[in-house]
Amino acid sequence: MSLKKILYGTAYYYEYLPYDRLEQDIAMMVKAHINVVRIGESTWSTYEKQDGVFDFSTLDKVLDAMHAAGIQVIVGTPTYAIPTWLAKKYPEIMVQIDGKRQPYGARQIFDITAPAYLRYAERIIRKMIRHVAQHPAVIGYQVDNETKYYGTSSDNVQRGFVQFMKDQFDGDLDALNHEFGLDYWSNRINAWEDFPSMDGTINGSLKAEFDRYRRGLVTQFLQWQVDLVSQYKQPNQFVTHNFDFEWRGYSYGIQPDVDHFAASEPLDYAGGDVYHPSRKHLTGAEISFAGDLLRTLKHDNYLIMETQAQAFKQQVPYPGQLRQLAFSHIASGANMVEYWHWHSIHNSAETYWKGILSHDFQPNPIYNEVVQTGGQLAQLSDHLVNLKAKADVAFLVSNQSLSALQNFPFSDQRNYNDVFRALYDEFYKLNIRTDITDEHHIRLDDYQLIVVPALYSVSDTFLEALNAYVKRGGHVIYTFKSGFTDEHVKVRTVQQPGIISEACGVHYELFVDPDGCQLVPQDATIDGHSDLHLQDWMELLVPDTAQVIAKYDDPNWHDYAAITKNQFGAGSTIYLGCFPSADVLRQVIQAYAQELNLLPFAATFPVIIKQGRNQLGKTVTFYFNYSSEAQTAQLVAPGQELITDTTVTAPVRLDPWGVAIVESSPKE
Amino acid sequence: MSLKKILYGTAYYYEYLPYDRLEQDIAMMVKAHINVVRIGESTWSTYEKQDGVFDFSTLDKVLDAMHAAGIQVIVGTPTYAIPTWLAKKYPEIMVQIDGKRQPYGARQIFDITAPAYLRYAERIIRKMIRHVAQHPAVIGYQVDNETKYYGTSSDNVQRGFVQFMKDQFDGDLDALNHEFGLDYWSNRINAWEDFPSMDGTINGSLKAEFDRYRRGLVTQFLQWQVDLVSQYKQPNQFVTHNFDFEWRGYSYGIQPDVDHFAASEPLDYAGGDVYHPSRKHLTGAEISFAGDLLRTLKHDNYLIMETQAQAFKQQVPYPGQLRQLAFSHIASGANMVEYWHWHSIHNSAETYWKGILSHDFQPNPIYNEVVQTGGQLAQLSDHLVNLKAKADVAFLVSNQSLSALQNFPFSDQRNYNDVFRALYDEFYKLNIRTDITDEHHIRLDDYQLIVVPALYSVSDTFLEALNAYVKRGGHVIYTFKSGFTDEHVKVRTVQQPGIISEACGVHYELFVDPDGCQLVPQDATIDGHSDLHLQDWMELLVPDTAQVIAKYDDPNWHDYAAITKNQFGAGSTIYLGCFPSADVLRQVIQAYAQELNLLPFAATFPVIIKQGRNQLGKTVTFYFNYSSEAQTAQLVAPGQELITDTTVTAPVRLDPWGVAIVESSPKE
Amino acid sequence: MSLKKILYGTAYYYEYLPYDRLEQDIAMMVKAHINVVRIGESTWSTYEKQDGVFDFSTLDKVLDAMHAAGIQVIVGTPTYAIPTWLAKKYPEIMVQIDGKRQPYGARQIFDITAPAYLRYAERIIRKMIRHVAQHPAVIGYQVDNETKYYGTSSDNVQRGFVQFMKDQFDGDLDALNHEFGLDYWSNRINAWEDFPSMDGTINGSLKAEFDRYRRGLVTQFLQWQVDLVSQYKQPNQFVTHNFDFEWRGYSYGIQPDVDHFAASEPLDYAGGDVYHPSRKHLTGAEISFAGDLLRTLKHDNYLIMETQAQAFKQQVPYPGQLRQLAFSHIASGANMVEYWHWHSIHNSAETYWKGILSHDFQPNPIYNEVVQTGGQLAQLSDHLVNLKAKADVAFLVSNQSLSALQNFPFSDQRNYNDVFRALYDEFYKLNIRTDITDEHHIRLDDYQLIVVPALYSVSDTFLEALNAYVKRGGHVIYTFKSGFTDEHVKVRTVQQPGIISEACGVHYELFVDPDGCQLVPQDATIDGHSDLHLQDWMELLVPDTAQVIAKYDDPNWHDYAAITKNQFGAGSTIYLGCFPSADVLRQVIQAYAQELNLLPFAATFPVIIKQGRNQLGKTVTFYFNYSSEAQTAQLVAPGQELITDTTVTAPVRLDPWGVAIVESSPKE
Repeated sequence: MSLKKILYGTAYYYEYLPYDRLEQDIAMMVKAHINVVRIGESTWSTYEKQDGVFDFSTLDKVLDAMHAAGIQVIVGTPTYAIPTWLAKKYPEIMVQIDGKRQPYGARQIFDITAPAYLRYAERIIRKMIRHVAQHPAVIGYQVDNETKYYGTSSDNVQRGFVQFMKDQFDGDLDALNHEFGLDYWSNRINAWEDFPSMDGTINGSLKAEFDRYRRGLVTQFLQWQVDLVSQYKQPNQFVTHNFDFEWRGYSYGIQPDVDHFAASEPLDYAGGDVYHPSRKHLTGAEISFAGDLLRTLKHDNYLIMETQAQAFKQQVPYPGQLRQLAFSHIASGANMVEYWHWHSIHNSAETYWKGILSHDFQPNPIYNEVVQTGGQLAQLSDHLVNLKAKADVAFLVSNQSLSALQNFPFSDQRNYNDVFRALYDEFYKLNIRTDITDEHHIRLDDYQLIVVPALYSVSDTFLEALNAYVKRGGHVIYTFKSGFTDEHVKVRTVQQPGIISEACGVHYELFVDPDGCQLVPQDATIDGHSDLHLQDWMELLVPDTAQVIAKYDDPNWHDYAAITKNQFGAGSTIYLGCFPSADVLRQVIQAYAQELNLLPFAATFPVIIKQGRNQLGKTVTFYFNYSSEAQTAQLVAPGQELITDTTVTAPVRLDPWGVAIVESSPKE
Repeated sequence: MSLKKILYGTAYYYEYLPYDRLEQDIAMMVKAHINVVRIGESTWSTYEKQDGVFDFSTLDKVLDAMHAAGIQVIVGTPTYAIPTWLAKKYPEIMVQIDGKRQPYGARQIFDITAPAYLRYAERIIRKMIRHVAQHPAVIGYQVDNETKYYGTSSDNVQRGFVQFMKDQFDGDLDALNHEFGLDYWSNRINAWEDFPSMDGTINGSLKAEFDRYRRGLVTQFLQWQVDLVSQYKQPNQFVTHNFDFEWRGYSYGIQPDVDHFAASEPLDYAGGDVYHPSRKHLTGAEISFAGDLLRTLKHDNYLIMETQAQAFKQQVPYPGQLRQLAFSHIASGANMVEYWHWHSIHNSAETYWKGILSHDFQPNPIYNEVVQTGGQLAQLSDHLVNLKAKADVAFLVSNQSLSALQNFPFSDQRNYNDVFRALYDEFYKLNIRTDITDEHHIRLDDYQLIVVPALYSVSDTFLEALNAYVKRGGHVIYTFKSGFTDEHVKVRTVQQPGIISEACGVHYELFVDPDGCQLVPQDATIDGHSDLHLQDWMELLVPDTAQVIAKYDDPNWHDYAAITKNQFGAGSTIYLGCFPSADVLRQVIQAYAQELNLLPFAATFPVIIKQGRNQLGKTVTFYFNYSSEAQTAQLVAPGQELITDTTVTAPVRLDPWGVAIVESSPKE
Repeated sequence: MSLKKILYGTAYYYEYLPYDRLEQDIAMMVKAHINVVRIGESTWSTYEKQDGVFDFSTLDKVLDAMHAAGIQVIVGTPTYAIPTWLAKKYPEIMVQIDGKRQPYGARQIFDITAPAYLRYAERIIRKMIRHVAQHPAVIGYQVDNETKYYGTSSDNVQRGFVQFMKDQFDGDLDALNHEFGLDYWSNRINAWEDFPSMDGTINGSLKAEFDRYRRGLVTQFLQWQVDLVSQYKQPNQFVTHNFDFEWRGYSYGIQPDVDHFAASEPLDYAGGDVYHPSRKHLTGAEISFAGDLLRTLKHDNYLIMETQAQAFKQQVPYPGQLRQLAFSHIASGANMVEYWHWHSIHNSAETYWKGILSHDFQPNPIYNEVVQTGGQLAQLSDHLVNLKAKADVAFLVSNQSLSALQNFPFSDQRNYNDVFRALYDEFYKLNIRTDITDEHHIRLDDYQLIVVPALYSVSDTFLEALNAYVKRGGHVIYTFKSGFTDEHVKVRTVQQPGIISEACGVHYELFVDPDGCQLVPQDATIDGHSDLHLQDWMELLVPDTAQVIAKYDDPNWHDYAAITKNQFGAGSTIYLGCFPSADVLRQVIQAYAQELNLLPFAATFPVIIKQGRNQLGKTVTFYFNYSSEAQTAQLVAPGQELITDTTVTAPVRLDPWGVAIVESSPKE
């Protein structure tokens, strides 16, 4: 699906305004070249003040006014925050965690499988979407918002899970007990009606399966909403969702509670929200990883449904950063950049999560930069919209491994996403574009190199496919813990790292805590003066056919390998048996990428370069400076700098937090 | 209300004694010139062993024995710790937090609005006070003890709150929804019966209102007890209460859960307890702030109902400190110093919160110092009792702002009281006496300078009154976050800092986390070699008419102001847009105080000077040395040193932790 | 009870195997000279898949196969992990903590007094033990496993406790109220039916009594199981239990929740599990203290039911350590060393608590060292089995003091066991063998020196017995907090440290937090260049007759003593009024031991020497090197080194983590 122009916009909450200033707001938006707003996704109690009494007048008012101003609208179904009356009427719909029903208050604290919730949600969706579908301002819909399963272990979820397991094992309890090792600590289930609540389970494999089941509930829920909305939506309207990521005060990594890869299938557009550190902590890595993931979901451009304007006190951007960030999204493949949100809110939970406007609604430095950015985007829209790029490298990520490693942690401080990000960030800094996908969706042969962080839980079949991919010429980087357990998180009984041992040419019997151990480089890959310390984990690798890149410095274990490389058939693998420093990771990745001819640009972070092909058939090269010092970047290809509309043939000079966009004729 | 002599005493728990030693205890008290004890406030289960069976024999015995020894008695109503039988009979009276009823055990874990509790509490109060009121030993009553609302969110409290809101908004739900921004996240309340429990609320404004309502319950409860006691008390007997403060292992700041200003209204005397660091950590600041607050409550002398003797292992005083502390209380305006407690307890929760006597009841260094101190106080009583002092500076504190900032924190490490204390402690160390009061009780024109820490939530009316006060010649120091929200914690929609912008001559649109930023002094107020670091918060101030005292060193924001000063009408203001170091605060305050002629003494901490007028019409100047090194203080006025009964005309030499008290004829 | 040979073995879970490999496992065991396995203790749900349906076929299969291979079997009663069907049928048996019933999942989460649990447990025990008792492979039984009371405060436990108190106080509530000081905070119990739940109690003495009562439940439970098993067991079979210790990720100190001294009475053998730090953190101290305690329980050899093979990633031993550890257990008096466990488990909670084999079941470095160790043990069995040794020093430990100090902590970071270990470890490092027992079992006159860490709660009678022991020539080291409270944790009303003041020749009134204070040595005992800092606690000792070893450096308290020594009658005492560094403790202990002629060997840690008499009447001296550097130890007595079968007459050279065992003729 392609758009006609870059969408630049903001979430807009007319309902939250302390006084009516719709006209003033729209005037300020128009000045800022804002051409889209997202509305409606959290105001169920305003549209249905009492059970069955609907009032869409504020919705109509906003739609009409926006349309009059030429601003398009994405309408959200309002189902992720329920009205007070619904919670009073059906207290059983509130999410239950460890047997305790959560009190009403926050959004996203009901059970998304509760029949009473679903009945009322369906009615408001139908009423609302039917009401707005014909409105000319409406270009698309967002179903629900940042849906997850909210930790629910309500009785009906438990019942659903038991049925799911019954189906999966064809009712064969012996098979279930065997696969999940339930004899342990007398946990055997000898009759389906004995299946205990997952609240107290100590079986990490079963817990991971429960998490997988619950991620499936999210997939089903979104599919159900898409189906409902589709009954009303017009052909020119799209349906999307706002996915979010592991949250550490900002978007850190893969979302543990949602299978983005499955859940995005019914959507027309992948959409998501991206929040990130700012000021001197800004690197752009979050925009890049989230963009790579969202883009790969549908192998298409995507929508940034939310990203920060002022946000929290620690996130207020330096002058120039906001503009840089908008272009960064576009460079990663976004067709829309939408801020959260227009005006800072005067009450409740997100008062200090500030929008474009402060609480006083006056122009301010952030708004002024939105005006500037909006103008440039509007001017360059034809050159930037529907930008395409191909990645030669893919990250293979795994919700199931993430869940499993929560139950079987390799560290008390770091999780799956730390491994993912440790690797991802080095590719990002080396300016190597990557796709990000999972084992059910990856097209192996599209890529020269596949990066596999901690693929802890996965089927034999997929590991064999990876072996075959290498054999026929592919390349893989594996980290520690990969291949350890099967798809039900049962540890493999073969020598570790299991099936991939063959392609990796190593095996191990023991793994230990580093506790001060360091690496000892064995060849030129790693500089002996690097930061050689290790964290969390070290496997005592025995190379079978592999070449040793690094060993450990503990005299008791100095014969074992730490990092190895192996030729296998026409391809090769790198196996990281430990968690080294960023410094070492960079060197290993850079050397390997060099060897595989995967380093497109000489520049590295803080100069970030992204390239794509625009709909005019031209190559567009973005140069970003992610630092407070001016930088000069070697010119990748001469052409026309779009923002300044000047011809560039010499190295590109970049201001602090600066951007240059050079359009050139493709070489090929 | 004035007393005839300084009361020096202790809490005494005859009921807790491991063996009867009333006579020995009284003999030891008499030796120490102890002339008052507080009894009875936590022994309901001893006086009423079963429902309706009363036995006041131990009370009588203690009253008689004390009276015989010439020791006066304050009797506490025993309602803050309930008997086992009452908890068994009416389990519903136990406090409910997050839907969980707390188990019996501790004191202060019942719901102070529970009808069953109130019925039984009323009966024991009536029985007990009627029983003792005629006893000649009884000089007064303490109603309950350290009353708070104990975090209760029981159903009846919830119902009461809904009614409170209904009354406040005249039943107008639209007004309520608008004022508290309840459209946000679908939290609208469209019928009063839908009002959700406050347990789960994410609306910080509503939560702050709930806290205000619950502080009101404490006020009502104390009023109710005073009314009950007043039906029996004799004309020469007083009623007081034992207020306490924010607890950080000692008395740190304003009490979050009680509105001292309202709750003290029905009392004859303000009373409170003060605990503080000791040994090398002792500064006296807690005694001073608590004393200033208690004194201001009724603009009269106050009673220290509890302060530490040995207390916890980290609080055992150095030789000399205990005596210094007693005089410090007097110097702040106390008419009574009562220790908690006489004998260390041999069981239960406070075994290691030691009293004057250790568990062996023998004389010990602390007791010996009590004997010495008691002797001196008895000797000097006429010179020290009913001491009066006038403050030219007032701190304007706010329970509502404190609550609101718990819900909308400016820091993950510090709260309202840290701002209050950061400022207070510098005034204390500069020997500037202050009153401490709230916006409903302050008499603005009594003061030359009003210090306003983080007045986050307050009405327009009061801010306008402050503006007017400045205009007609007053002076105000404001900190960051002041004026931001209205009395319902709704953020103001005008330019920040809202209404006070006018008097401060600044405004701001952005505020950020310091994250390493430092101050850049703009004039001589702040020494460039000071500790210029900032914590928690910085507002990017735009001076309108204000003069800039300091800016920020971040090159992106170096045009903004950090600390400003403004002439407005006949007065002036200082606005602190950030949270600077103690070092910087001291300089700003000292310079301003100097300019306003508010620095009474040359000496500064560790020499602390307090001055008052005694009932003999003389000026009494206390000199304290709060350090382990001897100090010499310039003589403020020649006169008679009372402890040594010697004439002083030269500088005052102070031993480590020493005290001198000079009585002189007033200058005026 | 004596064994014919050293037992060397492992826990074996046939039921947990991912595929049947019984024959291969046994072949590998035979190769490793494994001659015993423990089976059955956690697989109730496998043996009784549904209520009343029993199937012991896997048990039979393992017994037959083991017997055929000459491997003996210890059978565990399977009662510490209950089946899913039992939890479904009787949800009321799950343990209740703070009023919340715990969900099914983990082992050891039911109430060991619940009638339904006991009824079903009895049936499976009877069925199972009757089934296996005649099998020739079975040499003994383990009743339950690591039994504790699991924090239960279920209603029936509460009822039992009330009855226990009623019995203890002959129904005299006044006595109860007085002894526990229940007048405090109105906690008086004026009718037995008012006795409140212990969930909320703030009475630390009562809480400690509740803990004592609950430890008694464990004693009763084990006695009940022993009685059941004894109805079936054959004369040549033994009954044991697997005791464990305070857990800090490894066995740290005395078990808080079990009275090992009482609970071991019905057992034939004391048994226990020992886990400890490994690699460079290995000292052997845990093996030694646990061994000393287990050995003293029955004054006989004991069984190590579990100790680590690979265990967690931080515990994988260096080459040589596993062998050293096995001999260390033997040297302390163990007759069996059994690993937990044979094969690493492929699912559930202990997947990363690895056994001898990794998940791939292949030989690995750990297994190889087991093979080597097993061979040496088999060869030396006659020289090592039933080894006896006498200790001249005893540690007097106290579950009740441990519990009481949890309720009345002297530190926010350390507890009773830290004091115990601080002292124990110095004796260990000085190679002084100790017994470890409690006040109900100690035979005072068996020892020259008794070490008494923090004997906070104990009867007058016992303290008087200690005084008498000193008077007639015994020696005691006491630490701070000893003697402070009686057996019901009521603080003594005499001068502290109470009754022992007489033998110690000191008293104190005040105790304070060190807060930077250091020791000032007063004689040659402590080197002035030692680490003189103090932690947690310092009593301001006043020497009456005692000689002062150290004082405090605080100028305010420099007259007080910190460590004293006193002659009393024919004996002497050391009193440690503070918690000094390991450095100081070592010097005080070493000097005292020297004086008392208790230092058997010149060597100290990292050379550890243990000596015993074997059944051949020879003296066996073990030399261990607990370090990564080679060491040379002076020869204690010439003789035959057993492992290498060579005569040694010169100093013993020890490799890193090395062992030498010299058998010689006894001197006496």
